[in-house]
Amino acid sequence: MDLGTIGGMIGGFVLIIASMFMSGASLGLYVDPASAVMVIGGSYCALMIANPVQRVLNIMKVGKIALYLKSYEKEKLISTLVSFSEQARREGLLALEDGLDELEDKFLEKGLRLVVDGTDPSLIKSVLYNELNQIEQRHSAASKVFEDWGKFAPVFGMIGTLQGLIAMMANLGDQASVGKGMALALITTFYGAIVANIFCIPIKSKLDDRHGDEMMVKEIMVEGVLSIQSGDNPRMVEEKLLAFLSPAEREMVKSESSTGE
Amino acid sequence: MDLGTIGGMIGGFVLIIASMFMSGASLGLYVDPASAVMVIGGSYCALMIANPVQRVLNIMKVGKIALYLKSYEKEKLISTLVSFSEQARREGLLALEDGLDELEDKFLEKGLRLVVDGTDPSLIKSVLYNELNQIEQRHSAASKVFEDWGKFAPVFGMIGTLQGLIAMMANLGDQASVGKGMALALITTFYGAIVANIFCIPIKSKLDDRHGDEMMVKEIMVEGVLSIQSGDNPRMVEEKLLAFLSPAEREMVKSESSTGE
Amino acid sequence: MDLGTIGGMIGGFVLIIASMFMSGASLGLYVDPASAVMVIGGSYCALMIANPVQRVLNIMKVGKIALYLKSYEKEKLISTLVSFSEQARREGLLALEDGLDELEDKFLEKGLRLVVDGTDPSLIKSVLYNELNQIEQRHSAASKVFEDWGKFAPVFGMIGTLQGLIAMMANLGDQASVGKGMALALITTFYGAIVANIFCIPIKSKLDDRHGDEMMVKEIMVEGVLSIQSGDNPRMVEEKLLAFLSPAEREMVKSESSTGE
Amino acid sequence: MDLGTIGGMIGGFVLIIASMFMSGASLGLYVDPASAVMVIGGSYCALMIANPVQRVLNIMKVGKIALYLKSYEKEKLISTLVSFSEQARREGLLALEDGLDELEDKFLEKGLRLVVDGTDPSLIKSVLYNELNQIEQRHSAASKVFEDWGKFAPVFGMIGTLQGLIAMMANLGDQASVGKGMALALITTFYGAIVANIFCIPIKSKLDDRHGDEMMVKEIMVEGVLSIQSGDNPRMVEEKLLAFLSPAEREMVKSESSTGE
Amino acid sequence: MDLGTIGGMIGGFVLIIASMFMSGASLGLYVDPASAVMVIGGSYCALMIANPVQRVLNIMKVGKIALYLKSYEKEKLISTLVSFSEQARREGLLALEDGLDELEDKFLEKGLRLVVDGTDPSLIKSVLYNELNQIEQRHSAASKVFEDWGKFAPVFGMIGTLQGLIAMMANLGDQASVGKGMALALITTFYGAIVANIFCIPIKSKLDDRHGDEMMVKEIMVEGVLSIQSGDNPRMVEEKLLAFLSPAEREMVKSESSTGE
Repeated sequence: MDLGTIGGMIGGFVLIIASMFMSGASLGLYVDPASAVMVIGGSYCALMIANPVQRVLNIMKVGKIALYLKSYEKEKLISTLVSFSEQARREGLLALEDGLDELEDKFLEKGLRLVVDGTDPSLIKSVLYNELNQIEQRHSAASKVFEDWGKFAPVFGMIGTLQGLIAMMANLGDQASVGKGMALALITTFYGAIVANIFCIPIKSKLDDRHGDEMMVKEIMVEGVLSIQSGDNPRMVEEKLLAFLSPAEREMVKSESSTGE
Repeated sequence: MDLGTIGGMIGGFVLIIASMFMSGASLGLYVDPASAVMVIGGSYCALMIANPVQRVLNIMKVGKIALYLKSYEKEKLISTLVSFSEQARREGLLALEDGLDELEDKFLEKGLRLVVDGTDPSLIKSVLYNELNQIEQRHSAASKVFEDWGKFAPVFGMIGTLQGLIAMMANLGDQASVGKGMALALITTFYGAIVANIFCIPIKSKLDDRHGDEMMVKEIMVEGVLSIQSGDNPRMVEEKLLAFLSPAEREMVKSESSTGE
Repeated sequence: MDLGTIGGMIGGFVLIIASMFMSGASLGLYVDPASAVMVIGGSYCALMIANPVQRVLNIMKVGKIALYLKSYEKEKLISTLVSFSEQARREGLLALEDGLDELEDKFLEKGLRLVVDGTDPSLIKSVLYNELNQIEQRHSAASKVFEDWGKFAPVFGMIGTLQGLIAMMANLGDQASVGKGMALALITTFYGAIVANIFCIPIKSKLDDRHGDEMMVKEIMVEGVLSIQSGDNPRMVEEKLLAFLSPAEREMVKSESSTGE
Repeated sequence: MDLGTIGGMIGGFVLIIASMFMSGASLGLYVDPASAVMVIGGSYCALMIANPVQRVLNIMKVGKIALYLKSYEKEKLISTLVSFSEQARREGLLALEDGLDELEDKFLEKGLRLVVDGTDPSLIKSVLYNELNQIEQRHSAASKVFEDWGKFAPVFGMIGTLQGLIAMMANLGDQASVGKGMALALITTFYGAIVANIFCIPIKSKLDDRHGDEMMVKEIMVEGVLSIQSGDNPRMVEEKLLAFLSPAEREMVKSESSTGE
Repeated sequence: MDLGTIGGMIGGFVLIIASMFMSGASLGLYVDPASAVMVIGGSYCALMIANPVQRVLNIMKVGKIALYLKSYEKEKLISTLVSFSEQARREGLLALEDGLDELEDKFLEKGLRLVVDGTDPSLIKSVLYNELNQIEQRHSAASKVFEDWGKFAPVFGMIGTLQGLIAMMANLGDQASVGKGMALALITTFYGAIVANIFCIPIKSKLDDRHGDEMMVKEIMVEGVLSIQSGDNPRMVEEKLLAFLSPAEREMVKSESSTGE
C-alpha cells in the first residue's frame, strides 16, 4: 500500500474541508452536485474523444497502480543474475535451462531462454529492446490519460464558470442574487482545480515514477542477460549491474554477498 | 465507428446544455450566431494564414478519421509475415512473388517486391524508412491544423470578449444594459473554450493516437520484410514481431498459431 | 499568390469589423492611433533589442514570402534527376557536365558539379548538408522574428492596459469617465491580440511550412545527387525519390513516366 | 556556506516585509496561519501523491545542498590525473594501485581500480557511464520534487482564494465584510506565490546548477581514466582535460604546473 | 555599438512615457520608488538563490555584450584558412608554425598548433569539441540568468500587486482611496512587465543570437583545421567552408578571391 498516495489524498481533502469550516461558511455552500457532474463528466467526455475508449474505461485500473507500492528487490535480482552468470561459466549456457522455470519475471525468462537457445546477441538485443519500447509506449499512453484529464478538468471548470457568469450577468437585478450566482459560478472552477491537482496531475506523476523504476529493473535484466551470454567474468557482471543501484543499496548487496560466499 | 469520439462529443454537449437548464437561465441566453461566426470564422481565417489552403479545406476529411475505428489486425499481419518467411525459407525469395498481389497493403507489397527483386537491404531500408518519414510528416501536418485551431479558437473568443467589453464600458450608463453587455461579451470566450476543448484539442489527440497505431503496424512490416530478406528462422521472425504486441495480444496469437499448426 | 494568406487576413479583419457594427457600438470607439503606436511601436522596439537590426528591418521582405505561393514541381525535379541518372549510366559521370548550365537551382547544380569533378562522396555529403544546415539556420532566424513579435505584441498590449488602468484608478471620481478610461485601457490589449493572432503567429507558422517544403525539395536533390554518383540503377533512383511524394503525387509521376517512355 | 542562497532568501523576505510597512497597512493583515497551512500543507499533500514518500520526506535534506557551497577544485583533480598518467607511463598501469587508497572520490577510485585490474576499456566506459546515468536520475528526481512544489504551491494558493471568494460571495451583504473577505481570500494566492518564487523554484534551479558542476567533474574523471588506460601522452591528457576549464581557470593551472615542474 | 539594442531600449521607454503624457495623467502617478525596489530587488534576490552568486554579480558585464556589435569577418577567416591549407600542401604541415603567432584567435591557434605537433585527428577533434562544449555551457549559463530574471520580475510584480490589493481591500471604506490603492497596487505589475519585456527577455534573446554567431565561426575553424590536417585540396577546403556563408556573403568572397589570385 502506497501510504504517500493515500495519505496525500486524504490529507488534501481534510485540509480543504477544515479550511472551509474555519472560514465560518456553511459547508453546504461548497456542495453542488450539478457542478461536479459538469466538471467530471465534461472532462471525461473530452477524454473519450481524445483517447481510445478502452483506455479511458481502464483508467481506474491504471490509477490503482499509484495506490500500491511494488518493491522491485533490485538487490535480489542482481544476485540472481550473478549466480546465473557463475553457473554459465562453470557448466555452460545450456545448464541455465533448468533454473528458468523458477523465474517469476517473464521478461527475464524470455531473455535467458533466447540465450540458452543460442540466439544471435544482436537479435536478442533487438527482441528485448523492442519489447521495452512497447512497454514504454503502453505506459506512456496510460499516463497520458491522466495528463489529459488534468488539463481538461480545469478547462471544464472554467467553461462552467463562464456559463454561470453569463446567466448571472443577464439578471444583474438584485445584488443578493448576484453574489449567490457568482459563488455558484466559481464552484466549477474550484472543483476543476481540485480534481486536477489532488487527483489527476499527481497520479500521473507517480505513474511516471513507477514506470521509471520498472524500466530500470528491465534494463538491469537486459544488461545481465547480454553479459551472461558474452561470458563475462561474474565479478565483472556484478560490478556492471551494481552501477544501477544507489550507493546505499550497493553497500547492502556487497555486505550480503560477502557473507554469503 | 469510434463510439468514444461520437459519444464524447454528444455527451459533452448534452452536459453543457443540461447544465444551462439546471441553472434556470433561459437557453436563448447562450445562443448568439454573431458570436459563433466571430469565433469559428475568425479562427478559421487565422488557420488559413497559418497553413496551406488545401490542408485547411481538407480539415473535415481529416477530422472524420477520428470518427471511424480502423482495426489493424496486427495478429493477422504477423502470421502473414511469418508464413511468407516460411515460404521464403522453403522455396526461396522468388517464390514470394505469387502471393504479393493478394496483399491489401501497398506499403507491405512494395517492401516485399523489393525483396523479390533482390534489392540491396540497405536500399530497401532507406526506401521504406523514407516513405515512413513522409507519412509521418503528412500526418503531423494534418494534426497540426487541429492543434492550431485549438489555439486560435479561444484567442478569437478572447478578442470578441475584449471587443464587447470595450463597447460596454463606453456606455456604463444604466446597470441593466451593463449586465447584458457583459453577458454577451463573455459568450465568445465561452464558445471559444467549447470549440477548442470538445472539438479541436481532443480530435488532435485522437489523430495522433491513430497515427501511432498506423506507424506501429508499418514498423512491424519493415521489421518483417527485412527479417524475411536476411533469411531469419521463421520462429525467430515470429519472436521478433510478437515483441510489438501487448502481452494479451501475444497470448491470442500464440494459442491460435499452436492450433493452426 | 497565396490566396489563403491574403484571404485569411482580409477575412479576419472583415469579421472583426462586421462584429463591431453588429454590436451597435460606433466604429470610432475602436480607433485609437496612440494605442496602435504603443502596441506596434513598443513590440517593434523589443524586437530590435532581441534580434540583429538588419534582420528586423528585413522583416517585411521575409513576411512577403508568406504571400506568394512557390510551387516546387517535385515531380519534374524527380524526372530530371532520373534522366541525369540514366545519362550517367550510359555515358559516364563526365557527360553530365553539359546539362548543368540549364539547371535553374544553384544547389542542385553545385551538387552535380561536385559529382562531375569526381569529388569524394563523403565530402559531397558534408558540403551539401553543411549548406542545408546554414539554410535552416537562416530560415529559423527569420521565422523567430515573427515568433518574437507574436509574443511581444500582446505583452505591450497588456503594458498599455496597465498604464491606462493606473491612470483611470487614480481618478475614480465620476462613473462615466471610469467606463471610458477602462474602454481606452482595454484597446491596447485588443490591438495586441489582433496583431499577434491575425498577423505574427499565423505568418510564422506559414513561413515554417514553406521552409519544410523547400527542405524536402533540397533533400530530394541530395539523395538524387548521391544516388547518381554511386551509379545506382535509374529505376532504383526513381523508386527512392518517389518515396518523398505523397501517394497522389506518386500516381501522377508514374502515369506520366509510363507515357513518356 | 552559499551566501547567495541565504542572502537571497533573507533579502527577499526583508523586501516584502519592508514593503508591507511602507504601504502603511498593519503587518497583522498579512498573517493568517490557516492560509499558510492550506498552501504549504495542501501542496505538500499533492507532493506526496506525486512522488515516492521517502523522497518527499527527504526534501529538506536535499534542499540543504543549496545552502552549502561545494568547491570542486577541478584544477587539483586535473593535476592529480596528469600525475597518474605520468606514473602509468613510467612504471606501468599496475603501479597506480598504491596511490588509489589516498583518493577521496570513490568514483575516481573505482575507475582507476578497473584500469589497474586490466578491465576492457569498453567495459570501463559502460560501468562508469552507467553510474553517471544513475547519479543523473537520482539528482533529477530530487530536483523534480522542488519543481513540483513550485507548481503545486501557487495552485493551492488559487484553490484557497477560490474557496474564500465563494464564501464571501454568498454573503455579499455589508460592504465592509466584503473587503475583509476578499483580503483574506487573496492571502493564500499571495503565500503560494512567495513559497514558489522565493523558495521552491530558485532552489530547484540552484540544485540543477550544482548537479551540472558535479557532472562536469565526473566527466573529467571518466575522460582522464580512459586516457590513462589508453596510454596517452601526459601532455596530451592535460590538454584534453584543460578543455573542460574556463580560460581563467586554465591560466591558473598552467602557471602553477610550470612552476611545479 | 549595437544600435538595435540601444535604440530599442530608448525607443521603448520614450513610447511608454509619451503614451503616459498623451493619456493626460500626471507622470508622477507612475513613479513609485518603493515599487521599483520591490520588483527589481525582489527578483534580484530570487536570482541569487537560483544561480551562483558570482554569475549574478557579473550579470551587467554579460549584459553589455548585447550593447556592442562584434563583427566576425567570416570571409577573412575563410581566406586565412584557405591560405594555410595552400601553404600546408606546398611546404608541409610543419611550415604552418611560423604563421601561428600572428593569429588573434586563441582557439584557432590551439587547433593549428595541435596539427603542427602531429596530434592524432580524433584527439584534435575531441579537444576542440570539448572546448566548444564548455563555451556553450558558459554562455547558456549566462543567458539563463537573464531568462530567470525575465520570469522572476513579473512574478514579483504580481506579488507586489497582491500585497497592495490585500491592504486596499481591508480598508474598503471611502471610494477615493480605493482607486488610489488600486493604482498603486498595479504599479508593481506594470514595472515587472517593463523590466522583463524591455530588458531581460530581449537581451537574453540577443545574447543567444551572439552565441550562435560565435559558434558558427568556431565551427568554421574546426572544420578548417581538420581539413588542413587531412591534406584536402585547398579549393575543396574553400568549397567546404563557403557552405557556412549565406549566398550574399559567398559572392563577396568569391569575387574577392578571384581578384586576389
